[in-house]
Amino acid sequence: MKGKKKYVYYFGDGKADGRGDMKNLLGGKGAGLAEMSQLGIPVPSGFTITTEACLEYYRQNKKYPKGMWEESLAALKKVERSIGPKFGDPKNPLLVAVRSGARASMPGMMDTVLNLGLNDQTVKGLCDRSHNERFAYDAYRRFVAMFGNVVLGVKREIFERRLEEEKIVNGIQLDTDLSVDSLKALVSSFKEIVLKETKHPFPEDPLKQLRLGIDAVFNSWFGKRAKTYRRLNNIPETWGTGVSIVAMVFGNLGDTSGTGVAFTRDPSTGEKRFYGEFLFNAQGEDVVAGIRTPLRIDVLKKKLPTAYKDLMSIYKKLEKHYKDMLDIEFTIQDGKLFMLQSRVGKRTTAAALRIAVEMVKERLITQKTAISRIDPHQLDQLLHPMIDPNALLNILAQGLPASPGAAIGKVVFTAEEAEHMAERNEKVILVRTETSPEDIGGMHASEGIVTARGGMTSHAAVVARGMGKCCVAGCGEISIDEAAQTFTARDVTVKAGDFISLNGSTGEVILGTVPLIQPKMSPAFKTLMGWADKIRKLKVRTNADNKRDAAVARRFGAEGIGLCRTEHMFFEEDRILAVREMILADSLEARKKALAKLLPIQKADFIKILKEMEDLPVTIRLLDPPLHEFLPQTEKDLKVLSREMGVPISVVKSKVNSLHEFNPMLGHRGCRLGISYPEIYEMQVEAIIEAACTLSQKKIKVTPEIMIPLVATREELGKLRTLCIETAQTVMTRRKKKVSYTVGTMIELPRAALVADQIAAEADFFSFGTNDLTQTVFGLSRDDAGKFLPDYVEKKILPQDPFVAIDQEGVGLLMEIGVQKGRSVKPTLKIGICGEHGGEPNSVAFCHKLGLNYVSCSPYRVPIARLAAAQAAISSGNEAGHRATV
Amino acid sequence: MKGKKKYVYYFGDGKADGRGDMKNLLGGKGAGLAEMSQLGIPVPSGFTITTEACLEYYRQNKKYPKGMWEESLAALKKVERSIGPKFGDPKNPLLVAVRSGARASMPGMMDTVLNLGLNDQTVKGLCDRSHNERFAYDAYRRFVAMFGNVVLGVKREIFERRLEEEKIVNGIQLDTDLSVDSLKALVSSFKEIVLKETKHPFPEDPLKQLRLGIDAVFNSWFGKRAKTYRRLNNIPETWGTGVSIVAMVFGNLGDTSGTGVAFTRDPSTGEKRFYGEFLFNAQGEDVVAGIRTPLRIDVLKKKLPTAYKDLMSIYKKLEKHYKDMLDIEFTIQDGKLFMLQSRVGKRTTAAALRIAVEMVKERLITQKTAISRIDPHQLDQLLHPMIDPNALLNILAQGLPASPGAAIGKVVFTAEEAEHMAERNEKVILVRTETSPEDIGGMHASEGIVTARGGMTSHAAVVARGMGKCCVAGCGEISIDEAAQTFTARDVTVKAGDFISLNGSTGEVILGTVPLIQPKMSPAFKTLMGWADKIRKLKVRTNADNKRDAAVARRFGAEGIGLCRTEHMFFEEDRILAVREMILADSLEARKKALAKLLPIQKADFIKILKEMEDLPVTIRLLDPPLHEFLPQTEKDLKVLSREMGVPISVVKSKVNSLHEFNPMLGHRGCRLGISYPEIYEMQVEAIIEAACTLSQKKIKVTPEIMIPLVATREELGKLRTLCIETAQTVMTRRKKKVSYTVGTMIELPRAALVADQIAAEADFFSFGTNDLTQTVFGLSRDDAGKFLPDYVEKKILPQDPFVAIDQEGVGLLMEIGVQKGRSVKPTLKIGICGEHGGEPNSVAFCHKLGLNYVSCSPYRVPIARLAAAQAAISSGNEAGHRATV
Repeated sequence: MKGKKKYVYYFGDGKADGRGDMKNLLGGKGAGLAEMSQLGIPVPSGFTITTEACLEYYRQNKKYPKGMWEESLAALKKVERSIGPKFGDPKNPLLVAVRSGARASMPGMMDTVLNLGLNDQTVKGLCDRSHNERFAYDAYRRFVAMFGNVVLGVKREIFERRLEEEKIVNGIQLDTDLSVDSLKALVSSFKEIVLKETKHPFPEDPLKQLRLGIDAVFNSWFGKRAKTYRRLNNIPETWGTGVSIVAMVFGNLGDTSGTGVAFTRDPSTGEKRFYGEFLFNAQGEDVVAGIRTPLRIDVLKKKLPTAYKDLMSIYKKLEKHYKDMLDIEFTIQDGKLFMLQSRVGKRTTAAALRIAVEMVKERLITQKTAISRIDPHQLDQLLHPMIDPNALLNILAQGLPASPGAAIGKVVFTAEEAEHMAERNEKVILVRTETSPEDIGGMHASEGIVTARGGMTSHAAVVARGMGKCCVAGCGEISIDEAAQTFTARDVTVKAGDFISLNGSTGEVILGTVPLIQPKMSPAFKTLMGWADKIRKLKVRTNADNKRDAAVARRFGAEGIGLCRTEHMFFEEDRILAVREMILADSLEARKKALAKLLPIQKADFIKILKEMEDLPVTIRLLDPPLHEFLPQTEKDLKVLSREMGVPISVVKSKVNSLHEFNPMLGHRGCRLGISYPEIYEMQVEAIIEAACTLSQKKIKVTPEIMIPLVATREELGKLRTLCIETAQTVMTRRKKKVSYTVGTMIELPRAALVADQIAAEADFFSFGTNDLTQTVFGLSRDDAGKFLPDYVEKKILPQDPFVAIDQEGVGLLMEIGVQKGRSVKPTLKIGICGEHGGEPNSVAFCHKLGLNYVSCSPYRVPIARLAAAQAAISSGNEAGHRATV
Repeated sequence: MKGKKKYVYYFGDGKADGRGDMKNLLGGKGAGLAEMSQLGIPVPSGFTITTEACLEYYRQNKKYPKGMWEESLAALKKVERSIGPKFGDPKNPLLVAVRSGARASMPGMMDTVLNLGLNDQTVKGLCDRSHNERFAYDAYRRFVAMFGNVVLGVKREIFERRLEEEKIVNGIQLDTDLSVDSLKALVSSFKEIVLKETKHPFPEDPLKQLRLGIDAVFNSWFGKRAKTYRRLNNIPETWGTGVSIVAMVFGNLGDTSGTGVAFTRDPSTGEKRFYGEFLFNAQGEDVVAGIRTPLRIDVLKKKLPTAYKDLMSIYKKLEKHYKDMLDIEFTIQDGKLFMLQSRVGKRTTAAALRIAVEMVKERLITQKTAISRIDPHQLDQLLHPMIDPNALLNILAQGLPASPGAAIGKVVFTAEEAEHMAERNEKVILVRTETSPEDIGGMHASEGIVTARGGMTSHAAVVARGMGKCCVAGCGEISIDEAAQTFTARDVTVKAGDFISLNGSTGEVILGTVPLIQPKMSPAFKTLMGWADKIRKLKVRTNADNKRDAAVARRFGAEGIGLCRTEHMFFEEDRILAVREMILADSLEARKKALAKLLPIQKADFIKILKEMEDLPVTIRLLDPPLHEFLPQTEKDLKVLSREMGVPISVVKSKVNSLHEFNPMLGHRGCRLGISYPEIYEMQVEAIIEAACTLSQKKIKVTPEIMIPLVATREELGKLRTLCIETAQTVMTRRKKKVSYTVGTMIELPRAALVADQIAAEADFFSFGTNDLTQTVFGLSRDDAGKFLPDYVEKKILPQDPFVAIDQEGVGLLMEIGVQKGRSVKPTLKIGICGEHGGEPNSVAFCHKLGLNYVSCSPYRVPIARLAAAQAAISSGNEAGHRATV
């Protein structure tokens, strides 16, 4: 029928109107059934109403599109012809299951309605056909309740309460002990319930039942649960759902019947073994409901060998056909096997890796396919300890999952206490309202960190991710009383020294200790990452401020450091005093004196990091944060400082006051400090080049890249570039050594991107600082956004947190302008990204698209970025010259 | 000589190589002399070395370009032929003046050297020729001192000390009483001084003198004074300076000689009358030095009638030729008139307006030329009271000229005190470390405001400019002791109640009272502004938050309100309590209750403003600042609030704490408040539409434009637009009235500009908020920038303060993207600007270029914007359809 849309696709008898690749039109379930039918695999006959019909239904204000119902009736006739029984036939009734099925599996959608087509007449036909009155009325009462609940919207509890009553009255405990009379009584009670609750009698007409069933599936697409699920999983509304109407087969007709679910490989480990469960004399829902304990699939081998043999050959056929591990559902009716569903099975990351790698070895799939099948986000699981999923948890509070993994330790409330206890080999969890750079030592010493304030990109979160340390941030439920050395959450008060545990992957704070599972990198992981490395074009570097982080990252495959924040070095105990002396200095001479104390310390730090990264580039960012961040804030600490420095408290306070800023994020920081106090940057550059000279003398090849932060104008960079070059030249002359280094800049202000052509003239490289760029493009402080950003995502004003994934329309457009303008002047300009986004897969793909040279991310995200970069290369068809063999 | 550059241009004898329009090549002075010579006006012969020669001199590392010296010698010969005496001729020496002259008049450049060519031989020739030994030696001693100082760099004081000595020794007081012997002694003493100070003998060779003189002019181009002047006046280095060598004529040869300066019209009032001063028997420098009191030019009429008649006819010829008021210098030598210089004369703004308008009436110039001749910045002078320029001032401190005008009053340190004293009709000046919105009442009550902190766009500055009130901001020199009720500056302590005066146009804080000159708008001003209005394409609106400001602006020609900030209404005493109640509300109901109190107040405010702006559009911005701005900050004030509200202090404090933000500029403000608390925006829209309905019933035509601030995404605007429309509909239905209104948005975040196409879909208009846009594009908080921004401008990292004039490369590019993307979706989208830049002439020109529909600025800047808009239209050749008649 040319020009007319086909809304209904039949399947059965080894044939099908649809195909497996028509998921968009038929939904996952419908496409799977069609595909299986075409493969000659036994499936109950049926038909699928398309997702287009669903969308049209909404467009026409909940009316079926023209022809859909007629096509459905015609398909129903075909099913009757294929199976024998007829829909609504009181003698020999055909019963059907009505099932929803969107493009992707969607738990939020309508449940299946089984046994549709039963009424007071047809139930008798079912009795006759099955020679089993109990079976028929059991099916009937289940149908009325299920239809009443799912389709007609009557609360499930009302039916269940009536069922309980019936059992109490009859003094029985199990549903299976109900008598036929009881079942009949239940049917009529249930119908009364429906009448009372809906003001309409239960529909006896099977076609009306069918119509209502289809409506219910369509309507569930905009149900509350479905909407929530779509939002959480970024599924567009415009997909719509399909409806599959499938002839019922019965696993509950006796001991030669039954129902099962299986995975074609082990979904936990990925091991190549058929893995399933089976229940005799049961319907599908019984397996899922978990009332009876299912048996291992092997039992079939002895009890129903033919069905078992069929099942084995079918699953192999299916796996070969789909080239993936499958999750299948089947029913055996009187010894005959029917497949009800087959779909790609969910699996752990470890299993996913093993399956992908082994399938390449089995020549089922290519390396590229293997790479594309792993969700990079999931790799996190592999790299951090995890809480045993079987453990019972006493959850105290829920915060943001700021840095993944798990941790157990005693509660401490100060960074000092954390360090002291760590020195005594005690494991501690640092609990703070928020952390500041002063807490770095204590964070290092802790197993994990909890903060009451701050978002996913708060200081605590960023630093913890850098350290690969578990962190729960912004946990507003806990209320800290530092004086009393306690915190309270959900009415539980926890004292310093009490044990708590953290799940940084979910944001849970747990009372007491929990069993942990330690991570390991499997051979499959290494193999797959090796393939990914050959394909990707983007280099992957790490953000690391010390030797330890650098070493971790290098083990994870980092190809250099993209961001080494020198200020983090300033906070350690042996140097913070000199830093403060430098800040409090009231003359250039005094400042230079203090800087002279810092010089050897910074030099030693750089030697360690550069050595760890031998042969790889290391981007070192000069001092960035405003100076007041290095001064204490409380009256008490100011007094200590005044005493330590031998400076009157009034002077200290007046300095703190004069450094106060209304908006420190937009204040006197970054290269603005370098312009105001060139001697600070001179000291840092001297330390870098000194370190490089020292290593170079030992034949250790190092490539420092000096990076100037917060540049807005060409003139800033020009002046500071000159300062760097002159300082480096002085050091090299003194040391009689030549080392190679470059001078580049962060692009982290809108203006820098807008005038990138001017700035490029002074830069050897660009590195997008997308954290600050996101803050300025949105006019949104990440420290303050916690108050409304979650609400913004909830209300769909933002598709997602722009501090997690790059906002491609806004921030991304500015990056594109920056790349284009920068390379218009220097076509081979090296450009990277060192914001938190560098480890987020979608953002990595975007960076690949922009043609960046590298991404840089926290050490534990390096593998994620490597994989995401490979996937981006594959999906864009723009892979590394060195192609992977298939 | 094809291919060879000509470096030297001769003039004299009614001829000239150059012309008046060759200012770029010859400098203003050289071009003027050439032009006069060509017009047949008597000028001493001479020649000009071009600015290109100067630039070439620098390019060649301070060597003369090839041929320049030879050309100069040839020109010198021509001068000799024209005049008679010969350069260096001991019998009859030609003397010359060497003068600098850049494209624009540059006070920082080298002074003139007169009498060049004198030495021990030629001085005798001069004696013979003038029959006046005293004259000759007086000229000689002046020359040695002047040359020694200006060319050879010997300190002027050394010569002056020696001169004083000579006078003391001889017991005389006036230079003119010096004997010939004394003059001769001085010459040789001066030469000794030169030898001692420079280690070289005074150059006797006239050609060497000439060469050194030329060098000195060239070198002064990069002298410290010239560089400073260029920076302050935005003059590029690449202009270079010309050098004019002019035959000396002597006004000091006796009573038929003399020298004078004149303006062709009165430079103070613009009145059409020849206005000049004259000294008999004097050289040019004597008039300027002010030692003798010059006579009115009329004296010439009787004493030297021929010269007077010549002068009259020459000035008329010149004015007719140049079609502008001129500043001329002349010398009469033995009754014969020589013109030494003619250039466009400096004048007051009042004079500039009158001259321009009268010259149009005289058909000398067109209306467009008249418009183009007025510097819009200068109009400020006309609209504010000014300190009498002749008053002696006791300057206490120097701050930023934040809001122009002058003010006198008694010092107060709090807004309350300001209000109390104002009620008693006392004039006060409010002195604060910084102001906050709470101080608005006190600012209103004050004559002027001084702040110790904050820049040109600090709260105090912005609000004061809005009010047209004088303000000196960021006056770091004053140190306030609020407890003692005093402030100290430059060691003077000023108590509360003492009188001080402010000059908001210069930033000076002055001890005591000063005489003021009141402003008035002249007929010429009105005429010229009328012409400007006919030519400009940009509409000019005002930023006004109350009826008073609106009325002022309307009188100044505002064509509507471009920004009415509703939050300023929140601060007045009768409403701040309800605002705080709203903020402290712990439930939606409580918040709505508080809002219900605010509704009638806001409605009444809107009625007043809308009525004042009858027939004109009024853009009302919904609540923008973060809520914590409305809460008090000190412990004491919090206690008061707690008492007033009947809320425990702990609750008040906890609310203040929970509202605290690290970067309020990037925090929970603007439309984010509207999303979080839609009831606030609902109340505001209700008040606007209620006001419009009420006025509409009285047949008063009003056009409210509702503006949503801080939009970053289409979704924000979409949601709030719906809220506005639904609320408006409800009100109109209730009132049974239809009023026209629109809903638009600020474009003040980079993201809004980047996705302007999306945002335009939801907007009836755009208004660029360039204050915030500049802050986010630069990542620069205007409240904090004061610490380093002046240094940035000083060091040329920024050409100017981007909060004063739009940064066209960065912010401007983003605006261009915003306009282009916005109009790509809605070609006729109305777009304006409401940042502080809307009243800055260069920024107005940029807005014209971008094709905006209007600019909006503070009331007192409206005339400036009107004029700047007309000038932009003229210079771009894109004028309003309704053309001015010429």
